[in-house]
Amino acid sequence: MGELRRDPIVGRWVIVDTDHPIAPKDFQYEQYIQKGGVCPFCYGNESMTPPEIECFREQATAPNTPGWQVRVVANKFPALQIEGDLNRRPLGLYDMSNGVGAHEVVIESPYHAKDIPDLLPDEVENYIKMCGRRAIDLAKDKRFKYLMFFRNYGPSAGASLEHPHTQIVALPMVPKNVVEEISGAKSYFDYRERCIFCDMIRQEAQEQERIVLENKFFLSFCPFVSRFPFEVWIIPKQHSGYFCHMSNEEMRALAAILRETIAKVKNIFPNLSYNYIIHVAPINGDTDIEYYHWHIEFMPKLTQVAGFEWGTGFYIDPITPELAAKYLKS
Amino acid sequence: MGELRRDPIVGRWVIVDTDHPIAPKDFQYEQYIQKGGVCPFCYGNESMTPPEIECFREQATAPNTPGWQVRVVANKFPALQIEGDLNRRPLGLYDMSNGVGAHEVVIESPYHAKDIPDLLPDEVENYIKMCGRRAIDLAKDKRFKYLMFFRNYGPSAGASLEHPHTQIVALPMVPKNVVEEISGAKSYFDYRERCIFCDMIRQEAQEQERIVLENKFFLSFCPFVSRFPFEVWIIPKQHSGYFCHMSNEEMRALAAILRETIAKVKNIFPNLSYNYIIHVAPINGDTDIEYYHWHIEFMPKLTQVAGFEWGTGFYIDPITPELAAKYLKS
Repeated sequence: MGELRRDPIVGRWVIVDTDHPIAPKDFQYEQYIQKGGVCPFCYGNESMTPPEIECFREQATAPNTPGWQVRVVANKFPALQIEGDLNRRPLGLYDMSNGVGAHEVVIESPYHAKDIPDLLPDEVENYIKMCGRRAIDLAKDKRFKYLMFFRNYGPSAGASLEHPHTQIVALPMVPKNVVEEISGAKSYFDYRERCIFCDMIRQEAQEQERIVLENKFFLSFCPFVSRFPFEVWIIPKQHSGYFCHMSNEEMRALAAILRETIAKVKNIFPNLSYNYIIHVAPINGDTDIEYYHWHIEFMPKLTQVAGFEWGTGFYIDPITPELAAKYLKS
Repeated sequence: MGELRRDPIVGRWVIVDTDHPIAPKDFQYEQYIQKGGVCPFCYGNESMTPPEIECFREQATAPNTPGWQVRVVANKFPALQIEGDLNRRPLGLYDMSNGVGAHEVVIESPYHAKDIPDLLPDEVENYIKMCGRRAIDLAKDKRFKYLMFFRNYGPSAGASLEHPHTQIVALPMVPKNVVEEISGAKSYFDYRERCIFCDMIRQEAQEQERIVLENKFFLSFCPFVSRFPFEVWIIPKQHSGYFCHMSNEEMRALAAILRETIAKVKNIFPNLSYNYIIHVAPINGDTDIEYYHWHIEFMPKLTQVAGFEWGTGFYIDPITPELAAKYLKS
């Protein structure tokens, strides 16, 4: 019989197939093979993007020319726009507001064909450092209540451009999924006076069977209530609400574990598409970061979400996270 | 500037692109062309499925042989299994239980290549009648708290078999997404002493611009806070928590509007994959159906859900529902 598992943070149930575990070779996923062509994010094509917002570049090179390592530009087709006021207003029983926010793109490296595991450790560290700088800068705008960092890699993960990049959306309200996470974490904190993520780290460290990688500052593990096969979370061992407060040593450790974790998944599933999302506490509000713990949720695109998941919020995982972790470790 | 719209039931925000509305011809979606081959749901192959649970068939034909119009069988690879107890138990801070439930398949017609708009009105009515009968039967099992009816049509909607079919999952707990809907509808009811869906119908009927079709008993419309382009809801005008309580006349009206609505969407988007989900009130519990109103949510697979949606629960709709309704009506 399958097993039902309940996520202790948001109360989501997952049906885990414990009886007929699928082997990695049996996943049929869309292979991501790059097509190439003219790319606005490549070296030499800097004029094809909106102007740089921030950039790590060689001294004595001019903005919006080659010579850069990591480059941040506004999204050319932003979901939200930086000017204006929210102007929340009703329309009968509906509510609406203007689409105020920011939408930026972090071009992680000049290399069109290099995913994170293909970059040098220093290059990944630079990318992480830049994400932190953008978080600190965007949080200064008091209209923004949440900063969402996410990465779509490959067409089945929804990437429309091939050149690897991370998107940042600054939102004028705390999004629903985050509100749920915060509220679940708060309930636990109110009851036990401890961070639920810290307790999860303790339990994972004790049980060991879902851990993929570990270094001085970070843990990467297949969560007990994985929604997707080979889902992996990367979490700082030390309690912290925001990733932009990392020391240089912590950034180096995150770069290492992020690079190795993705490499391990892609070793099993070549040409994989995937998403990851950096979950952080809200900004410019009254969220007590005592009970929220930032982390990265990495979601490989090996299966498809269909009517059942849309309707229920339940997920069906065809492989136990324990077995997925075993494959990733070996 | 784009517009932010807030769903009054679950509080979900959607970013609607009001500035650069995309034309139907500009959607790039995966075309669903059937491949054919041996099909366990086709006439003559009845022995390839688990035995019939319920069936509309010609008199004097034996179960599990040809002669049927609508056939219900157990899912051969059920997500949940009918035998046993839930046995909820903790594992450290996690919770788990046995995978108890039911997982059935309604084979809507003997025709491999006929989607709902291709069936005769009577055939669609039979299919709806059968869904209602299964709902009434499954609700007798007091272990079940929710019945989810959903349909995945085409590979990008997650259908693994081509022959059109609807799935039923009976769940031992009310799923998260339904809990949210119920709780939103209850808040509104507590405040206004009216059903929010009934008020929505009133507002839609008044504004008219999002209505696609209407008959004596049903309305089909593009919801003000559509998550997906060309999303359509079909809702009974009369308040009711469960679709299995329909009269024959209502079933006929639902068959007609369902058939025509899907036909209208597929006229614009040939070979479209889509999902629809029947949202009903929970069963065997204490949900007051005064504030819940059953309906069908139809979701065409024209765009892809990516990191932003996964992380936030926000959606980005590239076309306003007002414009989508206009295309559907013309």
